[in-house]
Amino acid sequence: MLLQKGQKVLFIGDSITDCERAKPAGEGLFGALGKGYVSMVDALLQAVYPELGIRVVNTGISGNTVLELQARWQEDVLDRKPDWLSVMIGTNDVWRQYDTPFIKDWHVYADKYEATLRALVAQTKPHVRNVVLMTPFYLESNEQDAMRRTMDEYGAIVRKIAEETGVLFVDTQAAFNVVLKDLYSATLAWDRVHPSQAGHAVLARAFLNKVGFEWNRA
Amino acid sequence: MLLQKGQKVLFIGDSITDCERAKPAGEGLFGALGKGYVSMVDALLQAVYPELGIRVVNTGISGNTVLELQARWQEDVLDRKPDWLSVMIGTNDVWRQYDTPFIKDWHVYADKYEATLRALVAQTKPHVRNVVLMTPFYLESNEQDAMRRTMDEYGAIVRKIAEETGVLFVDTQAAFNVVLKDLYSATLAWDRVHPSQAGHAVLARAFLNKVGFEWNRA
Amino acid sequence: MLLQKGQKVLFIGDSITDCERAKPAGEGLFGALGKGYVSMVDALLQAVYPELGIRVVNTGISGNTVLELQARWQEDVLDRKPDWLSVMIGTNDVWRQYDTPFIKDWHVYADKYEATLRALVAQTKPHVRNVVLMTPFYLESNEQDAMRRTMDEYGAIVRKIAEETGVLFVDTQAAFNVVLKDLYSATLAWDRVHPSQAGHAVLARAFLNKVGFEWNRA
Amino acid sequence: MLLQKGQKVLFIGDSITDCERAKPAGEGLFGALGKGYVSMVDALLQAVYPELGIRVVNTGISGNTVLELQARWQEDVLDRKPDWLSVMIGTNDVWRQYDTPFIKDWHVYADKYEATLRALVAQTKPHVRNVVLMTPFYLESNEQDAMRRTMDEYGAIVRKIAEETGVLFVDTQAAFNVVLKDLYSATLAWDRVHPSQAGHAVLARAFLNKVGFEWNRA
Amino acid sequence: MLLQKGQKVLFIGDSITDCERAKPAGEGLFGALGKGYVSMVDALLQAVYPELGIRVVNTGISGNTVLELQARWQEDVLDRKPDWLSVMIGTNDVWRQYDTPFIKDWHVYADKYEATLRALVAQTKPHVRNVVLMTPFYLESNEQDAMRRTMDEYGAIVRKIAEETGVLFVDTQAAFNVVLKDLYSATLAWDRVHPSQAGHAVLARAFLNKVGFEWNRA
Amino acid sequence: MLLQKGQKVLFIGDSITDCERAKPAGEGLFGALGKGYVSMVDALLQAVYPELGIRVVNTGISGNTVLELQARWQEDVLDRKPDWLSVMIGTNDVWRQYDTPFIKDWHVYADKYEATLRALVAQTKPHVRNVVLMTPFYLESNEQDAMRRTMDEYGAIVRKIAEETGVLFVDTQAAFNVVLKDLYSATLAWDRVHPSQAGHAVLARAFLNKVGFEWNRA
Amino acid sequence: MLLQKGQKVLFIGDSITDCERAKPAGEGLFGALGKGYVSMVDALLQAVYPELGIRVVNTGISGNTVLELQARWQEDVLDRKPDWLSVMIGTNDVWRQYDTPFIKDWHVYADKYEATLRALVAQTKPHVRNVVLMTPFYLESNEQDAMRRTMDEYGAIVRKIAEETGVLFVDTQAAFNVVLKDLYSATLAWDRVHPSQAGHAVLARAFLNKVGFEWNRA
Amino acid sequence: MLLQKGQKVLFIGDSITDCERAKPAGEGLFGALGKGYVSMVDALLQAVYPELGIRVVNTGISGNTVLELQARWQEDVLDRKPDWLSVMIGTNDVWRQYDTPFIKDWHVYADKYEATLRALVAQTKPHVRNVVLMTPFYLESNEQDAMRRTMDEYGAIVRKIAEETGVLFVDTQAAFNVVLKDLYSATLAWDRVHPSQAGHAVLARAFLNKVGFEWNRA
Repeated sequence: MLLQKGQKVLFIGDSITDCERAKPAGEGLFGALGKGYVSMVDALLQAVYPELGIRVVNTGISGNTVLELQARWQEDVLDRKPDWLSVMIGTNDVWRQYDTPFIKDWHVYADKYEATLRALVAQTKPHVRNVVLMTPFYLESNEQDAMRRTMDEYGAIVRKIAEETGVLFVDTQAAFNVVLKDLYSATLAWDRVHPSQAGHAVLARAFLNKVGFEWNRA
Repeated sequence: MLLQKGQKVLFIGDSITDCERAKPAGEGLFGALGKGYVSMVDALLQAVYPELGIRVVNTGISGNTVLELQARWQEDVLDRKPDWLSVMIGTNDVWRQYDTPFIKDWHVYADKYEATLRALVAQTKPHVRNVVLMTPFYLESNEQDAMRRTMDEYGAIVRKIAEETGVLFVDTQAAFNVVLKDLYSATLAWDRVHPSQAGHAVLARAFLNKVGFEWNRA
Repeated sequence: MLLQKGQKVLFIGDSITDCERAKPAGEGLFGALGKGYVSMVDALLQAVYPELGIRVVNTGISGNTVLELQARWQEDVLDRKPDWLSVMIGTNDVWRQYDTPFIKDWHVYADKYEATLRALVAQTKPHVRNVVLMTPFYLESNEQDAMRRTMDEYGAIVRKIAEETGVLFVDTQAAFNVVLKDLYSATLAWDRVHPSQAGHAVLARAFLNKVGFEWNRA
Repeated sequence: MLLQKGQKVLFIGDSITDCERAKPAGEGLFGALGKGYVSMVDALLQAVYPELGIRVVNTGISGNTVLELQARWQEDVLDRKPDWLSVMIGTNDVWRQYDTPFIKDWHVYADKYEATLRALVAQTKPHVRNVVLMTPFYLESNEQDAMRRTMDEYGAIVRKIAEETGVLFVDTQAAFNVVLKDLYSATLAWDRVHPSQAGHAVLARAFLNKVGFEWNRA
Repeated sequence: MLLQKGQKVLFIGDSITDCERAKPAGEGLFGALGKGYVSMVDALLQAVYPELGIRVVNTGISGNTVLELQARWQEDVLDRKPDWLSVMIGTNDVWRQYDTPFIKDWHVYADKYEATLRALVAQTKPHVRNVVLMTPFYLESNEQDAMRRTMDEYGAIVRKIAEETGVLFVDTQAAFNVVLKDLYSATLAWDRVHPSQAGHAVLARAFLNKVGFEWNRA
Repeated sequence: MLLQKGQKVLFIGDSITDCERAKPAGEGLFGALGKGYVSMVDALLQAVYPELGIRVVNTGISGNTVLELQARWQEDVLDRKPDWLSVMIGTNDVWRQYDTPFIKDWHVYADKYEATLRALVAQTKPHVRNVVLMTPFYLESNEQDAMRRTMDEYGAIVRKIAEETGVLFVDTQAAFNVVLKDLYSATLAWDRVHPSQAGHAVLARAFLNKVGFEWNRA
Repeated sequence: MLLQKGQKVLFIGDSITDCERAKPAGEGLFGALGKGYVSMVDALLQAVYPELGIRVVNTGISGNTVLELQARWQEDVLDRKPDWLSVMIGTNDVWRQYDTPFIKDWHVYADKYEATLRALVAQTKPHVRNVVLMTPFYLESNEQDAMRRTMDEYGAIVRKIAEETGVLFVDTQAAFNVVLKDLYSATLAWDRVHPSQAGHAVLARAFLNKVGFEWNRA
Repeated sequence: MLLQKGQKVLFIGDSITDCERAKPAGEGLFGALGKGYVSMVDALLQAVYPELGIRVVNTGISGNTVLELQARWQEDVLDRKPDWLSVMIGTNDVWRQYDTPFIKDWHVYADKYEATLRALVAQTKPHVRNVVLMTPFYLESNEQDAMRRTMDEYGAIVRKIAEETGVLFVDTQAAFNVVLKDLYSATLAWDRVHPSQAGHAVLARAFLNKVGFEWNRA
């Protein structure tokens, strides 16, 4: 288990991270962490490792692209001084290219995405113990689907940045692909983007496996 | 893993099972299973065993005692023809003795509780593949606390019935006791009864461990 | 133009027809016809053929399969004595097989669908001037997608019944396929099912073209 | 068809244009364009010319007169850099003279209306490809009605400015007059101002006809 | 003054009478009489003739035609045993012919209107001290307007029945015509049907004048 | 009739004047004048003198004492440039002395009341054609009641100022006293302060009589 | 102290007893007893005599007269088998004579009041240990006030019945009269009927004093 | 009785004091003092000592610790110039250590608590007649419970400061302990913190006893 006693773990991202979390910061009781994978990660950490006292904070905001993350990075990441930072971003950067193709101001193309995400990681690494980069994903099993192809391209960018900078990498698309063999995408998400609780369980498992969570711990 | 392809698993109980599930029956998409351990069990089953196609149904109702369960047993359990039935009841049977001690009509004492629960199990066993009896619990670490003592007594009744009838038994109090060594009860529940997500994770783990869920399955 | 002065045209179907129409019947002022293709058909008929005085009625209900249509056919179709009847059903019959695969009670398979729809047409034809059968559709351009394949199969059933019974046939999937060449499906519907206003315009055009609507009428 | 690939078309006006559009700008999914003729124009453009990728934006605001348009022209027209601009204004300029005759501060008389609208067109023409001026209208078939006479006077001003400046002109009153021969005004609008969907279809058709929309395009 | 000490005056009609009155019966404090002419009549009676103790009851219901009045006549008129009965009905009987001309089921034509109203008066006269028949009205000054002509026809029917049966007659259209010489109809009602407070003052004055109300009473 | 063609009449006061008027200024359609005597005055002026085109404005605010009036006098009276100004204030100045006797900060005693009101009249008279001072009132028939005595004292101050400055004076308490001979105070107002519609009719009559309104005008 | 261990005390009455209590019966946690004197009595009993375990039930209903009490007496008093019954009724019986004097159906005059209340006491006495009759009251210090005089008359009836039947009697008017010497009635209730918390404290004290509550108990 | 005629008594604290009081200051009618012990103290003072005219003000705010009190002390205590000040603070200072142990920023430890409270008392004493310090409390009868132990420690700090500074001291925990002998804690508060009305009665009694309130005063 890589997480250590008393550490603070901050998750940032878009609506998949947000999930109706409390504002301005999602932490504490009464569902403040939202209804998604962040809350599930926190619940399992507390249930299985109660003695570690891990503090989980959620600063995801619905609709964000990597550009909005950049705009609030100082306030919502650096000022909060986390020990661990987990980033999952890119869904909206890609989606807007496919759901509102005529409004090009809303698109964040791959080069801009890559440069911005790389800069954020570089700026942050000196200040935190660990960074986890999670790919964006698309709950579509057809790899030739146009939006799936673009999403895979953005996922490859995340992998590349993770490898270059030596931070932890979570391939959420790969984790979902296993499930999509048996379940049609609509079972996990009507819009192929916002997962059901089962989808959030896939994300929580992928994250926890990466940080060495021992599921069978007594 | 004891659950098999295509089986239907029905959970019944009180508010800890209900958790804002859809009415009349909690199943399907859009949070229909509620926000508690039932939803978490379903999410993990779907995420880890997508090929099994387990159907989870939630018929918990807030405020129920074993007497209310009995009154709707035909409609909410037998008519739904589950393969598996999981029952967690007794919280309100005990709690009313402690939070409204003057209103004795609302109390369900141990003998009534035992007789009713035993009858329900006997009536149901012939019609389902498996029954899981989960104890009620109280998130109080002091074993000498009056309400904790009563709750333990009801838990012992559940255990006795499970042993007599040979059905599966989940000791939720024991599962919580491990966590309560490190966490003060208010962290898990302000009222010592309705658990946080972490508390629901404890319940989901206890259930899944009992049915042979393999956490590390690839 | 096939519609004649003073005729009543009744549309029945699921949520794509319903679109927040007034209950119990969708007709009259103040958006009573809903926000979808039925309202657009009515608006264009009134704007372009004001002298015909066509009465449009909407009895679509969200979530309906062909079985629910059958259950309310007497009240919502026959008793209303329309001159024209337009039916578009099948979306939910198919969708439930893909979004809640474990809940088989909610699925309407092809044989049941075909028999029921055929019976409804046979029962109704003697009482109305014209019937229009519109296929269900799926806004997915990949013809090998599992749900698209099933939806195409149901569309073929609709075509077969229309040909057997000699009623008008509208291939909505074909109409959408033209648009899907240029627009990714998410532009028309996040969930590939409930169309944007542009999608409803595709449906309205397909219907109106079939009944001989003259778009350039002065 | 005058609209070309990738162009942005901006509509501005009063409540007839607004129709509950999203704020601050009406564009994108989920009904952001409102429920009126702008949404219908957009839907038909996307349905019939999906390959053109026309971007439609709605900045109408309920209750506006030409003076309020002037006050927000920089922000809501020029800064948005449309290729096409469509203006329909004047309803409230006239209506207030008839529904609140005692509150003269709220009236915009013909000379002020004409000067302001002419200035806006002059200021804008150099920055856009095309301007469309649509007349205000009044759904009253009696040409001797006092308010109808005033509205016709304002419509004549719009025509005069369009001719002087060589921009496209849409005579909405003329388009409605055709329909009013067969339908009493209350069918189209209880208040003779805010049209039903049929009335919005009249407006959408008048606009689209002016820009060369081919209704029978395959 | 025709009203005498302790008498009960019941008003029945459509939305112009209803005006958000309390249900099931509009009488008593806290705005129970609604916001229209009935409330104003009651207020003036109480303010100017406090010693008479007149009891005013409002049983108008929005949307009613004379047919709906007939259906609830026993319960809402006869069973309440008024001394005075005031009826103003016909707006919707006429309006539906003009705002939803295609839905003929909703129209109440002149012969049906006349026969029904006459029957109601005949049935009621023996049981009450006085009946007041008020004409329906249309706030349109153009006497050649189609709907105004029809409304005048219905007003003439009311006059004829009043004369035949010898009951009091209030020509509301005539009362409004005086005002319409100076005020455009939109000042009194956007939809030419539901009056502003000024319009309700016209109605209240017309009623009170007919029953001999002395405005200058000290 | 003292009011002349095209004049603006502004009413200011407390909750009895406010009566849910529109904010920031109560004028125009849709109940903007509130539900009290101001609306009734406006309705009767429009109904009986439609040719005069009187503009009525309501700037009453619930809870105000004369001190709050003073604080917003420039904005809510002088800047609006009325021809006529009607002031009815003092209810709360007195009431707080009786309903919250312990909170002396909320009381406005007679000397302060008199000085402030006199200053406001002096400041305003040069800018308007006419001022009407209406007394506050208390719907209690017992003249020895403590609060009634104080209210009478404030009414006497209003009379004194009106006489000194030669403006019109309306004795609302006297007008109510006539009615209170026949009606117990609870019929007009449960709290003896906020009148029913009948009470507002008393106020409207008192005002209109003072300005020469001819009730029997044809 | 007359109340004994484990007894049930039921309060019935009108809005002064109801005070937003839970329905169908006011007892238990979370403000179920309402916000008035019943809740205060319960709170003080539990705080000062926790060992007695007195069960307090509130079945007051707003607007009730003695006739409505009679209509639900079996269900809301007798079936609940209280040991003690406290009745405070008559406010509305009197108030309707003064606030809606024209609607005589709503009045309950003294003879009817007396006969009904006497019958209820007679019917109930054999089934309960003790009855407490509390007078209605009117927060008006002027004994010559018409409604106060009537209320005093009803209070005298209550006293007479109490004396005849030998049950406990609480003169609430007398208790309030002490306070009204120092506080103007509006401090205790704007409408002279629904008391502030201070007024409810007066009622609670009067009741508790009658049953021998020892305020200084350690 | 220590409170004297015309004095102002200000209560400050956390949610137990706040209880939905009016903002910005809780005083006056209509439940402005909230629903807790402050309102009950005020009600009893007014009911039993109406001639004293004590003014009670509530400035408690839910969730406050002693640090938030300090931040608003000038505005919410000193500027209001009370004669008496009652402070009950510390619940949240302690609770956060037990319900969100991982978020140490939210904890206020004993040394900080003591220093801050002492400073506030020192700063305030010269400006008020009397200070009452009430301990925080925890409705848990097990003295060995971890949070109860901490709360007792904070209570001891309050006692120490009271003794050092010579102000009045109310031991609320001691008052509750008496009741907890007979009632299980859940009867008084599900979360052991926010008391029922009975719990607030305990607090009100403890306060009033300390200031010499005579319960049996006639």
